[in-house]
Amino acid sequence: MTPFTVEFDSESRTFHRREIPEPSLRPGEILIRVTCCTICGSDLHTYNGRRGAPADCVLGHEIIGEIVQWSGSEAINDFHGKPIRVGQRVTWAMAVGCNECFFCRNNLSQKCESLFKYGHESGGNHQRCSGPTGGLSNYCVLIPGTPLIPVPDSLTDEVAAPANCATATVCAAIRMIKETHAIRDATLLIVGAGMLGLNAIAQVCEAGASQIVIADPSGARADQARAFGATHCIHSGDQSEIESVLKSITNGRGADITMDFAGVKSAVETCIAAVRIGGCVLLAGSVFPSADIPISPEFIVRRILTIRGLHNYLPIDLDSALQFLDRTVDRFPFADLVTNTFSLTEAQAAFDYANKHRPIRVAVKPERKHVSVEV
Amino acid sequence: MTPFTVEFDSESRTFHRREIPEPSLRPGEILIRVTCCTICGSDLHTYNGRRGAPADCVLGHEIIGEIVQWSGSEAINDFHGKPIRVGQRVTWAMAVGCNECFFCRNNLSQKCESLFKYGHESGGNHQRCSGPTGGLSNYCVLIPGTPLIPVPDSLTDEVAAPANCATATVCAAIRMIKETHAIRDATLLIVGAGMLGLNAIAQVCEAGASQIVIADPSGARADQARAFGATHCIHSGDQSEIESVLKSITNGRGADITMDFAGVKSAVETCIAAVRIGGCVLLAGSVFPSADIPISPEFIVRRILTIRGLHNYLPIDLDSALQFLDRTVDRFPFADLVTNTFSLTEAQAAFDYANKHRPIRVAVKPERKHVSVEV
Repeated sequence: MTPFTVEFDSESRTFHRREIPEPSLRPGEILIRVTCCTICGSDLHTYNGRRGAPADCVLGHEIIGEIVQWSGSEAINDFHGKPIRVGQRVTWAMAVGCNECFFCRNNLSQKCESLFKYGHESGGNHQRCSGPTGGLSNYCVLIPGTPLIPVPDSLTDEVAAPANCATATVCAAIRMIKETHAIRDATLLIVGAGMLGLNAIAQVCEAGASQIVIADPSGARADQARAFGATHCIHSGDQSEIESVLKSITNGRGADITMDFAGVKSAVETCIAAVRIGGCVLLAGSVFPSADIPISPEFIVRRILTIRGLHNYLPIDLDSALQFLDRTVDRFPFADLVTNTFSLTEAQAAFDYANKHRPIRVAVKPERKHVSVEV
Repeated sequence: MTPFTVEFDSESRTFHRREIPEPSLRPGEILIRVTCCTICGSDLHTYNGRRGAPADCVLGHEIIGEIVQWSGSEAINDFHGKPIRVGQRVTWAMAVGCNECFFCRNNLSQKCESLFKYGHESGGNHQRCSGPTGGLSNYCVLIPGTPLIPVPDSLTDEVAAPANCATATVCAAIRMIKETHAIRDATLLIVGAGMLGLNAIAQVCEAGASQIVIADPSGARADQARAFGATHCIHSGDQSEIESVLKSITNGRGADITMDFAGVKSAVETCIAAVRIGGCVLLAGSVFPSADIPISPEFIVRRILTIRGLHNYLPIDLDSALQFLDRTVDRFPFADLVTNTFSLTEAQAAFDYANKHRPIRVAVKPERKHVSVEV
């Protein structure tokens, strides 16, 4: 198959197919045949101009692929320390740190001083890699040191791909919350029933939460949340309505833990207002500019609140994500979340469809036969 | 000695001596002869009308005293499970929880649904106690269930008394920070060099912090901080000046941990602005109304910030406070922090002096001979 990528031109907001030479791997690089890439909300932010992107950016970071070959005669180990094999189905951490800088040494490799990110705004940095690094490509090249994780056989490509962003980020959120607050028997508010929110519901459900309230203005999404373990679905983003429901089920206290995956101002404000005294607010949705929110320091202090921001994840969270999906794929309907599949040449249609209809995820599969799709 | 209290009238902002009957103890109550009470910043907030107080409030919650007797023939145990003795020098948790409500069961006894607080706004609640419960009194009565802690012989009354509020609150702050962030080898910014700030400096110094920056507009206080372990003293509350110092000593990153004990808007803003990516902000100063601060959710998310509020402390923190002082009383000049001592009949003068000259602490000792003091 001819190697080609689909590059995004941020000025014209269009995608263009570009044939590329067979990559000539540098030492330690791994060549991957991409089998599936799901389109993340942050890809749509870039598509819609809410985030910058270099001119030749190859988007897509929720990627599953097969190992074709690697450069050099030495074995390369996966994240678990096992040698990788040709033909093995894998995914890999979206962000690769240097393992040496201050942030890498302090469990913040996603903020590495020389960070390399697949399929993101900095994904066009081909100087560090001999081939394409985004998922909208039929071949990908991984740089040395990329944490590689085998995909369990129980998971289809479509189920496993979003693990690379949404599921892993939720694993990071749960890991952070557990540092200070118990999820078992807790009442949680989760705002935003997209891929992250639905994953959060499933993960806190598995962790033994007693009441899981989901709020999303999209009624269909909120209802879908029930299948992932939500006990209360609010078809609204209205703060007073959400607070009222929470108070009614917590003896007036509010949620033990609130999590925002929507990122809009009102959602963040609701998460802070609706959490109980001594509770925990986890913010992960605000990855784009939005208005400041006014916060009373006395409110934070007297109510002994914990507010934590999260952006991206660590390699260990991606490993947790795949383990979580492997454990629960029969319990929660993850397979229903990728509603449409496009071929790689239909990338533009995939984005237009995702933008217009806002399904949880659409997938782009390079080997899928091109069929014309009504967007 | 005739039992008497000094009551605060919040309308006239004056103190009045009132002789009281010998307390007739109810079951489980403990009679304490007060030997020392230091005046806390929150007492001054009440004195200055920034916090409400009931008409007959007996202020003072940083109290040391001797056990005179208790009601009933059964032994009463201290916080360590050892029987208390008549004549024993003790202090006790300022806030007493019920041990049964949601908050008591969730490590938030300072927010108990039927909280009892010594010497605070609710200290006038004599319906729950047969005698005075504030420190501006020569006798105090403790309600059943009050966590009692023996005072180590190494500590004078003046050194031990502030443990009950400032040192214990700082122990709670350090306990919370350690849940998520390492203090060893860290760079910290501490804003406000009052009793809490100086205690925080000493505690993080003992915990192995590598760089401790104190910021306080009062140059004298900031300089005093050096003796407690501060490595950098900024005589200012200016955000850009503080950020500039921190960046210069952290390769441009900012502080690993920031702690606010000042409570004013600019101090809180500085703590949030000056912390590094992935750092921790601990807010404990905002115990009075102040203006809202504008916060960017994207800033919290992308910088993976942890922001925690703290109000008061748990009994275990008071125990940690006395142990900390016992370990370090020869290392740090805690004995210098109580600069003036007044007799109980001079309570008004003590408050006026504290209000005017803002020393770290003044003490009120009932048995001290009355001498006229120039305020």
